[in-house]
Amino acid sequence: MRSLRMTIAYDGTNFGGWQRQPKRRTVQAELEQAMERVTGQKTLITASGRTDAGVHALAQVVGFQTATWLENEALRRALNAELPADVFVFEIVEAPDDFDPIRDAVRKRYRYVIQDGQIPDIFGRNYSWRVFEKLDVAAMHAASRALLGEHDFAAYQTNGSSRLTTVRTIYDILVERRWGPNTERVEANGFLFNMVRNIVGTLTQVGRGKRPIEWPAEVLESKLRINAGMNAPAQGLYMMWVRYEI
Amino acid sequence: MRSLRMTIAYDGTNFGGWQRQPKRRTVQAELEQAMERVTGQKTLITASGRTDAGVHALAQVVGFQTATWLENEALRRALNAELPADVFVFEIVEAPDDFDPIRDAVRKRYRYVIQDGQIPDIFGRNYSWRVFEKLDVAAMHAASRALLGEHDFAAYQTNGSSRLTTVRTIYDILVERRWGPNTERVEANGFLFNMVRNIVGTLTQVGRGKRPIEWPAEVLESKLRINAGMNAPAQGLYMMWVRYEI
Repeated sequence: MRSLRMTIAYDGTNFGGWQRQPKRRTVQAELEQAMERVTGQKTLITASGRTDAGVHALAQVVGFQTATWLENEALRRALNAELPADVFVFEIVEAPDDFDPIRDAVRKRYRYVIQDGQIPDIFGRNYSWRVFEKLDVAAMHAASRALLGEHDFAAYQTNGSSRLTTVRTIYDILVERRWGPNTERVEANGFLFNMVRNIVGTLTQVGRGKRPIEWPAEVLESKLRINAGMNAPAQGLYMMWVRYEI
Repeated sequence: MRSLRMTIAYDGTNFGGWQRQPKRRTVQAELEQAMERVTGQKTLITASGRTDAGVHALAQVVGFQTATWLENEALRRALNAELPADVFVFEIVEAPDDFDPIRDAVRKRYRYVIQDGQIPDIFGRNYSWRVFEKLDVAAMHAASRALLGEHDFAAYQTNGSSRLTTVRTIYDILVERRWGPNTERVEANGFLFNMVRNIVGTLTQVGRGKRPIEWPAEVLESKLRINAGMNAPAQGLYMMWVRYEI
């Protein structure tokens, strides 16, 4: 058996998320079925992050074991020929035998796209969160400074996952206006369940002028989810990349 | 009755085109139903161009007669509240009593987007034509020069429509590489059925190196559709705007 690492993109719009589930179209199931059609073997594929329904990925990393005799580039082409138009395999490389895409990840980056104001970009409706108020992007960026560094992000975690610790380190967080839509990007050593979407929902309350710049820091310190803003919707979220040291 | 002119955008992906048809979701039907819900009156809405299934519009112009007492801006907001997320009304203004959005149009512009090469933008799959070869954009642009001006475009018309004349004037045609995808834009006093898509399909054969730069001019002179390239697919085509002198 060979251990392989694969970098993929997908448009989350028509998927019920990454993880295989009965009666739902999922990215994991599409990839595993394509692998079975190409190699004739059942293959379990695991991802660096189990993205929710509607969430997109520009460079998700997944891992699997396979006995196929196909070379990596031939396997990549064969998978792309089998996969539907909303998933694409960029690269397949050898990985250590015990490669685990979640445990071995050292950094991840997400981006979140918001379109604000009265005139919508209808073509972006599945690729951004539409907020009707014009957002104060400078205030959102200023508010985000308090989240940089190592903190207990319990207040920004949606319950339902049982991680050993809710302490994470954010290395980079930026809110900026680009073209028309705003984007927020967040880079950390790991993310709690819905952490980026909860941070975005909270910062957006500052951008709307409903809360002061200090508020996201107060939410953080409270360690209580109930104090944070809404969970921003899935369709604005993009997994950008995952870094490994191996 | 008041005569109104309305500028709208739509994402053609989930529409069976502009024109009302039984059992298909169409832009005309969505707009007419929204007008009926808002005003209580049945309304016939006509467009400057009957776009096909999958074709997008950034500023399509439509006209209708209505007895509503709603002011234009209030009507616009009420329609946007009723319309689905893939149609948006930008503007409603008064029009002459006999306004006819097809007959009165003096110029129209279309854009066509192609993504070429081995690495797809999966997010653009409903918004562009994917061509696997890297295209020679300079050759395509050079070939397009022969189409500028007044010509009989019979060779670039798909049969099925019965226009009095197949003579049209192209005022502007440009093929350029932007970001990653290529775009072609064409501006004319009117377009024959599938004219832009037939032009794009023909120029792309030049871009692929399958035909010489002179070929699109030879096709034009032949006046025979059978000589032209394929009809480029609908999802790359955007109606950009329509100009009226009234």
